Amino acid sequence: MEFTVSQIAAMLGGEVKGDGGEKINMLAKIQDAKKGQIAFLSNPKYEQYIYGTQATAVIVKKDFVARKEITSTLILVDDPYISFTRLLEEYHKMISFQKTGIEQPSFIAESSVAGNNIYRGAFSYIGNQVKIGDNVKIYPHVYIGDNVVIGNNCILHSGVKIYSGTRIGNKCEFHSGTVIGSDGFGFAPQEDGSYKTIPQLGNVIIEDNVTIGANTVIDCATMFGDSTIIRDGVKLDNLIQIAHNVEIGKNTVIAAQSGISGSSKIGENNIIAGQVGISGHLVIANNTSIGAQSGISKSIKEEGQKLMGNPVFEVKEYYKAYAVFKKLPDINVRLRELEDKLDKLENDSTEKSLSME
Amino acid sequence: MEFTVSQIAAMLGGEVKGDGGEKINMLAKIQDAKKGQIAFLSNPKYEQYIYGTQATAVIVKKDFVARKEITSTLILVDDPYISFTRLLEEYHKMISFQKTGIEQPSFIAESSVAGNNIYRGAFSYIGNQVKIGDNVKIYPHVYIGDNVVIGNNCILHSGVKIYSGTRIGNKCEFHSGTVIGSDGFGFAPQEDGSYKTIPQLGNVIIEDNVTIGANTVIDCATMFGDSTIIRDGVKLDNLIQIAHNVEIGKNTVIAAQSGISGSSKIGENNIIAGQVGISGHLVIANNTSIGAQSGISKSIKEEGQKLMGNPVFEVKEYYKAYAVFKKLPDINVRLRELEDKLDKLENDSTEKSLSME
Amino acid sequence: MEFTVSQIAAMLGGEVKGDGGEKINMLAKIQDAKKGQIAFLSNPKYEQYIYGTQATAVIVKKDFVARKEITSTLILVDDPYISFTRLLEEYHKMISFQKTGIEQPSFIAESSVAGNNIYRGAFSYIGNQVKIGDNVKIYPHVYIGDNVVIGNNCILHSGVKIYSGTRIGNKCEFHSGTVIGSDGFGFAPQEDGSYKTIPQLGNVIIEDNVTIGANTVIDCATMFGDSTIIRDGVKLDNLIQIAHNVEIGKNTVIAAQSGISGSSKIGENNIIAGQVGISGHLVIANNTSIGAQSGISKSIKEEGQKLMGNPVFEVKEYYKAYAVFKKLPDINVRLRELEDKLDKLENDSTEKSLSME
Repeated sequence: MEFTVSQIAAMLGGEVKGDGGEKINMLAKIQDAKKGQIAFLSNPKYEQYIYGTQATAVIVKKDFVARKEITSTLILVDDPYISFTRLLEEYHKMISFQKTGIEQPSFIAESSVAGNNIYRGAFSYIGNQVKIGDNVKIYPHVYIGDNVVIGNNCILHSGVKIYSGTRIGNKCEFHSGTVIGSDGFGFAPQEDGSYKTIPQLGNVIIEDNVTIGANTVIDCATMFGDSTIIRDGVKLDNLIQIAHNVEIGKNTVIAAQSGISGSSKIGENNIIAGQVGISGHLVIANNTSIGAQSGISKSIKEEGQKLMGNPVFEVKEYYKAYAVFKKLPDINVRLRELEDKLDKLENDSTEKSLSME
Repeated sequence: MEFTVSQIAAMLGGEVKGDGGEKINMLAKIQDAKKGQIAFLSNPKYEQYIYGTQATAVIVKKDFVARKEITSTLILVDDPYISFTRLLEEYHKMISFQKTGIEQPSFIAESSVAGNNIYRGAFSYIGNQVKIGDNVKIYPHVYIGDNVVIGNNCILHSGVKIYSGTRIGNKCEFHSGTVIGSDGFGFAPQEDGSYKTIPQLGNVIIEDNVTIGANTVIDCATMFGDSTIIRDGVKLDNLIQIAHNVEIGKNTVIAAQSGISGSSKIGENNIIAGQVGISGHLVIANNTSIGAQSGISKSIKEEGQKLMGNPVFEVKEYYKAYAVFKKLPDINVRLRELEDKLDKLENDSTEKSLSME
Repeated sequence: MEFTVSQIAAMLGGEVKGDGGEKINMLAKIQDAKKGQIAFLSNPKYEQYIYGTQATAVIVKKDFVARKEITSTLILVDDPYISFTRLLEEYHKMISFQKTGIEQPSFIAESSVAGNNIYRGAFSYIGNQVKIGDNVKIYPHVYIGDNVVIGNNCILHSGVKIYSGTRIGNKCEFHSGTVIGSDGFGFAPQEDGSYKTIPQLGNVIIEDNVTIGANTVIDCATMFGDSTIIRDGVKLDNLIQIAHNVEIGKNTVIAAQSGISGSSKIGENNIIAGQVGISGHLVIANNTSIGAQSGISKSIKEEGQKLMGNPVFEVKEYYKAYAVFKKLPDINVRLRELEDKLDKLENDSTEKSLSME
């Protein structure tokens, strides 16, 4: 990709001060920027760098007044940070979606259809009766089972595995190694101590704008017609476990290595930290915030709580209790001393009583 | 697949009441069932649905007496729930094992052999001197290293990776992304602070009827001739870590994200919840039950215990202790108050003594 | 591979006692060894086995005196254990690096280059502008994105996924399913409760001698020019999470299922046990040792500490506190008894005071 400074300025609604015809091919931080790159200056702390930078262009605030000579072309905008962020996003989108066309060998069943502007990497596999929308990027080694439906503008990174029957919305991005639709962990104990596999016949539904990290696993629902559901805007980090029949509410964010057990229903706008464990068949209220490594074994009914511990309780209370936990050996000693003193007092008191009688 | 109601009734040893010639192509819950589907009625709570269902057939108890008109054909059996479960299993088996034949491109070394009724998906890879039994389903992107042996009726989902030398029994199912036989984590500290890799030369043995979830890892044993062993009937969930030289006893069940460190030997019929950690070189007795997120750092010798905590102790005791843990700040205050009161009492007592002398 | 006993003795600088022309094709433990294999005797406890072993050759200490007849050829060395370990390493290296040549179908972009003695397995994928050194082994289903650089003598096991821009040094080994360079977990909260993806534009740098286990994930850094860095000699186990912008110091070892949050900087020669969680933006001093399942939420400034808990404190103190934690219900009862007794004493005392007035 290559743009002129003027093209970028036009995109940002900014004004060019200097040579608008110069070519930009990359974004950079002002302290690192080289020729051909564009940087920004927002925090006054970094102003020193603008006088020495090799950046071809720098985005600055409209009212910026230079104290020395600047060799870079300037783009004047209302908010340089927001403008730069917009450029970052555009650039990222361009990079992410730049792959296109069909690499060979790749596999797609005759009964499957895909929209326009698709990338199908080498060694990607698409089973029977699959429907894929427009502008979907399927990297090498992706597996898509039978009867899967995928919307528009999705990115499936190398090695994503999607089991049969999964339904995926628009603007979703799944990172490498993520598995969607594997069997739930369902086994019926038999009299001889062995377990019989309970057939897992449901599917997974993933709505729009869902991002899933690398090597995360989402199991399918158990029964026909049932689904494990990931609602609109959910963000899942790496190495997360989502069990069968779980539902994750809109815009909930879960950090790496957390696990949600079967049939639990997580509310909207939850923030769940890393390595958290949530037991099965629970309901977690909206706007719940759960601290790292916490364990939840009962439903959370009141919205907006911040919790921690195993099992969880109010996070500030957890830290207070933990502060005393660290002093428990001392507390034990103090308790023993109190008991001894009290024994002595009681004895004294009894003696005195006796002596006074 | 498509069966007549009479064919299904014959399979279940049930009696048809209505049109046995109607076609069934799917199972469903009675409240959701559509034409062409079969449902069941076991729990009286759901009886209302049988009078309105569009199901072509419903499995009911022999002595079921309808209170209104029913349009579906009925199959009368002893236990509708068990009968339906049998159908589910048959259906699942049919689905799971329906794939057959060789998709291209796929890779198999000349020195390797596979039995009858094999499915080898596109982009699957089978190395040298591999032996595979009958009715094995190898999905796309599966990797099977050299000298691997696999029994009959196994399913390896897309992206399973099996290192050289692994031996797998019959009726095993491994979900996507599972890795079997990777190097154990063995490093010898050197004088300069660096680590030297200890060669990992053993293998993994997996017996019959073992199910392994997605993205789980089982490392190989360290020494020649030694094996990491997963015994008959073991069920492992997703994202589990099984280190080198571990042995998991018959019919033990382990939930997601738990980890077993090197050389530990887990007994039979254990139930290990999610996110549990077990240290290395331990022996865990049979029928042990371990609560979520527990840590085990000593061997468990007594069978049949239910444990929790880090380190673990009896689960009920854990919850009792934890209940007090939550009140520790209060306990700390009460202790301080006691100390103050006692100081006062002692002073008073001394004063009184003095005043009485 | 096949060597004569004399060839092996020459390699070890040892002396042959017996037939040096016999052929060796495998290493084994003395109690298991068969014809064609070589074993060693170091621990006197195992001396009994040397008199019955079928091993073609046994490595023994120079001054070993046999008490009975031995049929195996002996190799006399200074330290049999060290000699055997050397053989193990040589054998392992031979095995690990024996694969060579290009299997088809495999994919490499025209703009990419690889050195000598490369193995590229079937279905491996190499993107644009990739540079790969000599003696690198790329197993089936490995994905290497655009602009990746890989040094010499690296092994990438089946299914490793390396995102664009990653830089890898020499003598690294990555196990199956490991993902390097996936997007960091960065999302900016919006007013409507949804999250906007923050573009992740940095990369991952992995220095020399780094071993990474199976299904571990290392995210890329957020900004252009920034990197997530894994320093020389680091050993990572399976299923570990390394977030964006993390740096792991030289020769640090991390056990399975631990997670390091964004931008934390882990010192050198740390030993981090399994299932540990480290929060973001922390600095952990060199030579820190962290117990299993610990949680770290503040920087560790003092070097050489051994820590445990969530949050962590000194490991011995943790175990002392935990010992009292287990007795908390008892402590609660004792505290209540003390309070009752003290109340009674106070009352008595008051009564006495009153009665004395």
